[in-house]
Amino acid sequence: MSRPPARKQENHKISRELFVLTYGALVAQLCKDYEKDEDVNICLDRMGYSIGIRLIDDFLARSAVKKCRSYSETTDMIAQVAFKMYLGVTASVSCTSAAGNEFSLILDKNPLVDFVEELPAERASLCYCNLLCGVIRGALEMVHLAAEVTFLQDRLKGDAVTEIGITFLRKAEDRKHKR
Amino acid sequence: MSRPPARKQENHKISRELFVLTYGALVAQLCKDYEKDEDVNICLDRMGYSIGIRLIDDFLARSAVKKCRSYSETTDMIAQVAFKMYLGVTASVSCTSAAGNEFSLILDKNPLVDFVEELPAERASLCYCNLLCGVIRGALEMVHLAAEVTFLQDRLKGDAVTEIGITFLRKAEDRKHKR
Repeated sequence: MSRPPARKQENHKISRELFVLTYGALVAQLCKDYEKDEDVNICLDRMGYSIGIRLIDDFLARSAVKKCRSYSETTDMIAQVAFKMYLGVTASVSCTSAAGNEFSLILDKNPLVDFVEELPAERASLCYCNLLCGVIRGALEMVHLAAEVTFLQDRLKGDAVTEIGITFLRKAEDRKHKR
Repeated sequence: MSRPPARKQENHKISRELFVLTYGALVAQLCKDYEKDEDVNICLDRMGYSIGIRLIDDFLARSAVKKCRSYSETTDMIAQVAFKMYLGVTASVSCTSAAGNEFSLILDKNPLVDFVEELPAERASLCYCNLLCGVIRGALEMVHLAAEVTFLQDRLKGDAVTEIGITFLRKAEDRKHKR
């Protein structure tokens, strides 16, 4: 029995437009539910976390990725493989701390904001794509990497790029020691 | 300047898993917001409608579809082209009325419910995927076709298949006349 890999791959895909509009509906609903931007941001992060802890199994199975040996390698994996697999784009990575535990993912193009012109004035503190931070945080936690994940720059707020900051909360030494 | 079509196509795709989990978060949020299943269903339908009226432009542009000449042709277009483009699956179609204005879309596999085992007992009347009905209704309205779109069968509720019913609200004669 032969398996048609092309078809199987395609079955894993959904149109970006439908996703982006559905995500927009979710954010709009939360903006109805919560007056404060901060509460919407927390809720999106929590939702993302729940998604991340489920998505990691899918990622490990489909990427057939080997164990990452450093924070840098882990971050590259997120930026190059996971972002490509789930969002259809890649991010560039830079290490932003001498300790080697803080990284920036830079997205020239953020597929989640395709239909969003700009945030309304009364929603200036909204982290529209905060779900992404939660997804990364949740997925990392499932591979025993505690991290803080937040938006550092956001094109929706007039920044030149979209930048997600990842701070790994244990030092590389501690982590090696545990393994 | 040459345009790389394969890359362009890929950019339109998002992983199904991420979409399905995000959609699940949306439904869960609405279930928190509304006590009655009926209110959740209405809300999902409305959200879908808003998505459909935006998605139709994308569909017409990308599918380069010619004008449909009958309800039957329109329904086939939804089942074969639109479902494939946006959800990665196709549906089979049957006409269910002698008047030729009622159709069923049958989905053997519903990609939106991948991670959903079954509805909780207290949510027995929830139309989990009701967003889809709204999307179809909204998109049809934008091409001047008023329709009622509802779930007739749902695998999540123990039915053998997932069946979406489309009832076009004007007779084919009226429509021809209007053109």
